Amino acid sequence: MRVAVDAMGGDKAPHEIVKGSVLAARQFQNDEIVLVGDEKAIQGELNSHGNPPKNITIYHAPQVVGMDDPATYSIRQKINSSITRSVELVAKGEATAVVSAGHTGAAVAASTLHLRTLKGVRRPGIAVAIPTRHGICLIIDAGANIACKPEHLFQYGVMATVLSKHMFGIENPRVGLLNIGEENAKGNDLTKETFALISGSGLNFVGNVEGREIFDSKADVVVCEGFVGNVLLKFAEGLAMNLLSTIKAGAMKSFWSKMGLWLCKPTFEALRAKMDFSEYGGVPLLGVNGVCIICHGRSDSKAIQNAIRVALQLSKNNVNEHIVSELERTNALAATVM
Amino acid sequence: MRVAVDAMGGDKAPHEIVKGSVLAARQFQNDEIVLVGDEKAIQGELNSHGNPPKNITIYHAPQVVGMDDPATYSIRQKINSSITRSVELVAKGEATAVVSAGHTGAAVAASTLHLRTLKGVRRPGIAVAIPTRHGICLIIDAGANIACKPEHLFQYGVMATVLSKHMFGIENPRVGLLNIGEENAKGNDLTKETFALISGSGLNFVGNVEGREIFDSKADVVVCEGFVGNVLLKFAEGLAMNLLSTIKAGAMKSFWSKMGLWLCKPTFEALRAKMDFSEYGGVPLLGVNGVCIICHGRSDSKAIQNAIRVALQLSKNNVNEHIVSELERTNALAATVM
Repeated sequence: MRVAVDAMGGDKAPHEIVKGSVLAARQFQNDEIVLVGDEKAIQGELNSHGNPPKNITIYHAPQVVGMDDPATYSIRQKINSSITRSVELVAKGEATAVVSAGHTGAAVAASTLHLRTLKGVRRPGIAVAIPTRHGICLIIDAGANIACKPEHLFQYGVMATVLSKHMFGIENPRVGLLNIGEENAKGNDLTKETFALISGSGLNFVGNVEGREIFDSKADVVVCEGFVGNVLLKFAEGLAMNLLSTIKAGAMKSFWSKMGLWLCKPTFEALRAKMDFSEYGGVPLLGVNGVCIICHGRSDSKAIQNAIRVALQLSKNNVNEHIVSELERTNALAATVM
Repeated sequence: MRVAVDAMGGDKAPHEIVKGSVLAARQFQNDEIVLVGDEKAIQGELNSHGNPPKNITIYHAPQVVGMDDPATYSIRQKINSSITRSVELVAKGEATAVVSAGHTGAAVAASTLHLRTLKGVRRPGIAVAIPTRHGICLIIDAGANIACKPEHLFQYGVMATVLSKHMFGIENPRVGLLNIGEENAKGNDLTKETFALISGSGLNFVGNVEGREIFDSKADVVVCEGFVGNVLLKFAEGLAMNLLSTIKAGAMKSFWSKMGLWLCKPTFEALRAKMDFSEYGGVPLLGVNGVCIICHGRSDSKAIQNAIRVALQLSKNNVNEHIVSELERTNALAATVM
């Protein structure tokens, strides 16, 4: 398998991106990594790693999409950017997956434009795995699509069900609809119509799920429209960081609590690891014809290494093929019901 | 001042509601509390408090709106319910404020129906105060209105600005728009139109605010539509509880970390208090012609006592009068600009 890595995307690019790619190349010696971006800059970074692995190559792309560039503009104007070139390698079949820690909007736009969607898929969606009381919950969509229709949400349910099954080993993933109440009739037009649509599908639908129930492991997959998913996950990130720093600042006020915090250190480190996006290493954009892993802008080498692992897993587990056949199955079922 | 308390609403009603009302009646001896609900049940609870304060009376209402009753149905059908009767006391001028820990939808519906909106207000909105790094941020709307238009969001900004100024003492509250990016052109149709509308108003508008930036104290008021606000705040509640219980469970695994947790206890207690909704004691439904404080279903006596305090503060600070005049001012300003 061959993974194209956008070497210029992210707050710590190219240094941490190249470093993470070298770590992954050493870990997955039967696979290949193509570093896409400014050749000189990448070569300089690679040289600092002594004897760089043979399964890493460079693909030159002189332009970079800045974090402030509008997504669509940058994709249409900067055709030589590292993200566009990375995605093109997948589109041309020269790589099976792309990994980027750059501008999320640009990665989504480039993937949708050049890879197109999988057969039957209306809109791609970003699936984020969050730790719950008893496992993992996939929240989809985290912001790829902010003009969401009931059919998109239904398809997100199908795609994340496949991911949950083939990546997290959940036998029959329970799908919930993020809503403002548990009762069937709750919510806005979008959630009401989606509720009816998913109820009649072949999905293992558990109904409406409220914000706080996500952590009670009420569902393995929770679908929501991209605007909601995006603000929700960013809010959660802010809250978690704020809580941990408040605990730290509070404990620093006295000798005894400082000592207590030191004794609790392993607990906090385990928690931080559980919450740390770099452990999961990027999130997949599901529904495009190729594997696209989007990383946090702050990604370090460990996050990039993990993202490459995730990209390889999705490719090797044929997640996209399963999505296409699962969509066909549920569509056929819906046609029978109607 | 006279506060009508829905004695039958909430998971712990009437016991904790009556207990909290007794505490408040003793604290605010120049004000009055009317306990609305089943007379016998309330009297039984009151008797258990020895010599109940003279500034507490009972107003009989035989029906109760259950947590599973649809909001509109219950308001139209259960006209003798404790929540409807409580709101009616305010509508008739026999009380200045209502406090309820019952069915939120029913409280919103009853208040909107019987109190009507304040002059100039299109839709009421629920304002929730959350602790941030350097103070408090008011998020509005937390779910009163899920068919939101730009003008509603603009008015939420005005109403919460008044609350921030007159309840939290912020001189010139900064208003932000919850969005999926910082740039002006980001977001869906609702946020784009709202951005344009608020930019031209007299509000101290600081632009788009992303989910994680709320905790960085980027704004004192953040407006969002009710569906988003509702799932966001419930998700945050679930996350915070999950984090704290994970820390506790993790620390229980070894003797030393258990000891550490014990030493950190004051820190955790301070944090829990900071996050604890019962300290804030209910959230106001802004925009109705009367004061309506909505409490968490889990409210205990302390939460009810605090909610009554908040109800009295809103009444005494003439928050509603300020909202009406501030809306007139900003509308006049908008008319000049256009």
